Amino acid sequence: MGQNFALNVAEKGFRISVYNRSPAGVEAAVSRSKKEGLEERLTGFDNIPDFVASLEKPRRVMILVRAGAPVDAVIESVSEHMEEGDIIIDGGNEWYENTERRKDHVAKKGLLYIGMGVSGGEEGARNGPSMMPGGSKEAYAPLENMFSKVAAQVDDGPCVTYIGSGGAGNFVKMVHNGIEYGDMQLISEAYDILRVIGGASNKELSQTFADWNKGELESFLINITSIICAKPDDKGEGFLVDKILDKTGMKGTGKWTVQQAAELSVPAPTITASLDGRFTSGLKEERVAAAKFYEGLGVAEPCVAESPDDKAALIDDVRQALYASKICSYAQGMALIRAKSQEMEWDIDLGSLARIWKGGCIIRAVFLDRIKQAFERKADLPNLLVDPEFGADLAARIPAWRRVVQRAVAAGIAVPGMTASLAYFDAYRRSRLPANLVQAQRDFFGSHTYQRTDMGGWFHTVWDESFGSADTAITSGYNN
Amino acid sequence: MGQNFALNVAEKGFRISVYNRSPAGVEAAVSRSKKEGLEERLTGFDNIPDFVASLEKPRRVMILVRAGAPVDAVIESVSEHMEEGDIIIDGGNEWYENTERRKDHVAKKGLLYIGMGVSGGEEGARNGPSMMPGGSKEAYAPLENMFSKVAAQVDDGPCVTYIGSGGAGNFVKMVHNGIEYGDMQLISEAYDILRVIGGASNKELSQTFADWNKGELESFLINITSIICAKPDDKGEGFLVDKILDKTGMKGTGKWTVQQAAELSVPAPTITASLDGRFTSGLKEERVAAAKFYEGLGVAEPCVAESPDDKAALIDDVRQALYASKICSYAQGMALIRAKSQEMEWDIDLGSLARIWKGGCIIRAVFLDRIKQAFERKADLPNLLVDPEFGADLAARIPAWRRVVQRAVAAGIAVPGMTASLAYFDAYRRSRLPANLVQAQRDFFGSHTYQRTDMGGWFHTVWDESFGSADTAITSGYNN
Repeated sequence: MGQNFALNVAEKGFRISVYNRSPAGVEAAVSRSKKEGLEERLTGFDNIPDFVASLEKPRRVMILVRAGAPVDAVIESVSEHMEEGDIIIDGGNEWYENTERRKDHVAKKGLLYIGMGVSGGEEGARNGPSMMPGGSKEAYAPLENMFSKVAAQVDDGPCVTYIGSGGAGNFVKMVHNGIEYGDMQLISEAYDILRVIGGASNKELSQTFADWNKGELESFLINITSIICAKPDDKGEGFLVDKILDKTGMKGTGKWTVQQAAELSVPAPTITASLDGRFTSGLKEERVAAAKFYEGLGVAEPCVAESPDDKAALIDDVRQALYASKICSYAQGMALIRAKSQEMEWDIDLGSLARIWKGGCIIRAVFLDRIKQAFERKADLPNLLVDPEFGADLAARIPAWRRVVQRAVAAGIAVPGMTASLAYFDAYRRSRLPANLVQAQRDFFGSHTYQRTDMGGWFHTVWDESFGSADTAITSGYNN
Repeated sequence: MGQNFALNVAEKGFRISVYNRSPAGVEAAVSRSKKEGLEERLTGFDNIPDFVASLEKPRRVMILVRAGAPVDAVIESVSEHMEEGDIIIDGGNEWYENTERRKDHVAKKGLLYIGMGVSGGEEGARNGPSMMPGGSKEAYAPLENMFSKVAAQVDDGPCVTYIGSGGAGNFVKMVHNGIEYGDMQLISEAYDILRVIGGASNKELSQTFADWNKGELESFLINITSIICAKPDDKGEGFLVDKILDKTGMKGTGKWTVQQAAELSVPAPTITASLDGRFTSGLKEERVAAAKFYEGLGVAEPCVAESPDDKAALIDDVRQALYASKICSYAQGMALIRAKSQEMEWDIDLGSLARIWKGGCIIRAVFLDRIKQAFERKADLPNLLVDPEFGADLAARIPAWRRVVQRAVAAGIAVPGMTASLAYFDAYRRSRLPANLVQAQRDFFGSHTYQRTDMGGWFHTVWDESFGSADTAITSGYNN
């Protein structure tokens, strides 16, 4: 990642110094720079003092190492040789509070600090990622020129903007990754339905995703899914994707997103379903045993259908269900960012954020331009679901969405992401939920009180004479 | 809560001293003890030194105050007057790590510490709660006699057992509350379906829950739901539950459960859906606006049906769907406790845990005896879903369960708990999930590698020549 980013910087006309703990790492970067004709602008260093000394002031040192303790270690090593006004940029998937801590820590030496989310994987780092810098505002001006050139370029500018103070850049990247989890889960559910209920072959799947990539779903992930489905197995017959073990790995950001949603009282069920999907995938041995156990009870696993008569209609329904589910997932992510921004007073501009995700990053999609427009229309839009355009999109897709979910439920195919999105939609647009019953239960057993719809105040009811209702905090000790 | 617990202790034949920061709190306890003929065994104190001095050694001081800082404050005040071998018991809904910290803290003074989950609300505290003590093992023997008498009594003993060391008692109570959230959400979904799709009146709802309380669903929460549905409004016409505002409050434990599930890589989608359900209920004003917005787009809110012809069949289906969904929710909670117990080496006996939840607590139910039996049959059962009895229960209810979910989805009624449970079931019993596609995507854009089903090792594929694949950690600085 770091090597690719360094080559990107050099290619954009900046001189860059590189250092790696391992001499082989430095050597690899230098030799790649030669191969790519960039050796005049990229210089390798085998020690930190020389590396830091080679930089112009204000020195701008970007760290791309594993998040957590390694970042602290590098900060200690480099900051020792840096001077007031110099800037440290951490480009890793860091927990936002670590950035806030480090910013304060290096500020004691007069250094400025940026925690920057960088998305786009290897390819993005080399050719233009989406960059989400947050932290010292005064550090952004001396970085803006370089960031604007190395970032992905889209129709309305480079995919970078100053996000907000403190850990805002990391937080936003964390939610970006949560949204990415959601997209991947939803696509995998669409793939599962098309394959099992639709009986689609790998070639048909690849073609379907390629077709979808020409419309409302156009995005990097739909594009690569099309490529993946058609990729022949390089070690045998058939297609590679069919040989891949169905156990999904993960790093920390999806987990953090779910935990932060809970912390901030923001419902994020689609993103949570995606995380749970990965956890469940990890229980491969238990799943194989459970499948056998239920086969023994006469409950068969869903099996691949012959091509159904209404295959074309099914494909069209799934496309609509996927799009509607995706809107709900982004609505959750955006609501989460807004809640945190309010809490932390980061003042994040959600429209700009959608704009810088249009290119470079894993979730890049034409769809993000529509989100940008939604927040441009109404900066304080409470939820994407009530934007006029997305609202109309969803309303038009409701019949297909419900058909797909019902069909998957009938077939025994788990579609936790799509059902979570649909429940999110159906709950959010409901003026009265059955939470009145829950609140009554809480008052019944815990004297938690309730409000009424027809008058102000809080009430407690003795629902049944056989239950008490005292509520006094007390400290007690006892004797035998 | 504390007052009720103190009266319970006194009633069981123990002498008890009570202290409260507010003299009125002490006075209230003393005067209630007189009303209940327990004044000989309950003594009030207006200061801590006298309160502590009144106790026999080893002194056993139980704290029931708001979790967090108030507990620390009380510990400081009382421990000052306590001596080696004395015991402090915190009965609040405390974050388990606080208990671990406090246990170590008071150990410096030679004191023993118990963090005890107590469930049952006001009524349970007075008449017999379910008690989940964890912490210093050596403190349990001098407490066992009293705990065994004040706890709820069921057919196989008192609802208390030593859970495990450190914060085990608090953790288990936390998950208990998460499960309680799940039960309440699922019941509210059943109520919603019966009311809206089934057109059931409050009296019919009350009767239905009363009927259900005679079978597999027999439980405290089903019982009180029956009472709630029929309760007349004391301030006007009609029924009280219909006047209660559909905004649900919450405390911290449900949130912690969800965050811990994410931390431990344990899927807990039903419990999460319950938490999200509470969050969504809180967005009342947004929901009312969204309902109006979608009405404008021709998407009506679900409206109450006339009594359908198949009402009896619907009621029976919903009963089955509720029971199946509940099994999945408990399976998640138990899996979460097991994962934590393994991580912390708490060695929690899940069968005993199910036993002590059979009485006293909010989730008490005959159902818990079946869980107890499942873990007695097989202590290392990987998941409740593969217990022979629960498996047969689920297998028999699958058709009804799918019918209910499909019907709710068609009607536009959000049933996030039931769909989460169904997806949990359908994913857990699936030998091959579409996670192979997710893993391929991760390898495509992030070189994360994958495993194969047909050979060992980890593989990386260059899925498309236009995408790079270098992966080197690097530190870089640059010059303009």
